[in-house]
Amino acid sequence: MTIPSLKFNADGLIPAIVQDAHNKRVLMMAWMNAASLEATLQTGFMNYWSRSRKSFWRKGESSGHTQKVLRWFADCDADTLLFEVEQIGGACHTGFTSCFFQEFSLDGTPREIAETKVFDPEKTYSN
Amino acid sequence: MTIPSLKFNADGLIPAIVQDAHNKRVLMMAWMNAASLEATLQTGFMNYWSRSRKSFWRKGESSGHTQKVLRWFADCDADTLLFEVEQIGGACHTGFTSCFFQEFSLDGTPREIAETKVFDPEKTYSN
Repeated sequence: MTIPSLKFNADGLIPAIVQDAHNKRVLMMAWMNAASLEATLQTGFMNYWSRSRKSFWRKGESSGHTQKVLRWFADCDADTLLFEVEQIGGACHTGFTSCFFQEFSLDGTPREIAETKVFDPEKTYSN
Repeated sequence: MTIPSLKFNADGLIPAIVQDAHNKRVLMMAWMNAASLEATLQTGFMNYWSRSRKSFWRKGESSGHTQKVLRWFADCDADTLLFEVEQIGGACHTGFTSCFFQEFSLDGTPREIAETKVFDPEKTYSN
């Protein structure tokens, strides 16, 4: 399935913001190509395109930390997507719930990270 | 002020996700260059870089719909930013609260838009 109105960039990619459907925390931002969007909609689970590895990537394929899509949106320019998901485990490969665990003050100083990791990435990715 | 750890892309830009600090709704995603990030942190209000107009852009300069920064975060790769803001009026130039007003079903069909606009863009941008 394709959605003709969506605008992929010159590399054929579109950014996808991922938000916890229940508490609304923003978990991560990643990129999709048309095939990963199609796989996401067909399976109901988030699939991405890894720009660094240049490969299709099903979220949770190594970690088990899948993201089930509950709702999704395109923005007014049709060039950014927003997904509300049910996150299993943590979204971040570092072990945190969200990739946005590092807060900064307005003067640019990193704030102390108060939350703790929800999984141990060394154990999760060692198999 | 600069934050050396942040990674701007080949065009010198970094994506900024903007979320309502109070109800956690994702309002928009836009791009910043180093100067707009610096202006954002110095003034406490969101400033962007418009890729289409190739210009610096203070959010609300035409509409009055400013975004006051309450908290901000970088992600684990330091290549995406998240801002929690106090939004005046609506974030979207179409008149909606959020740019993500168009929901789709998993089969790719646009859902009916239930919410209403919070301002009239023809009046807001006519001056």
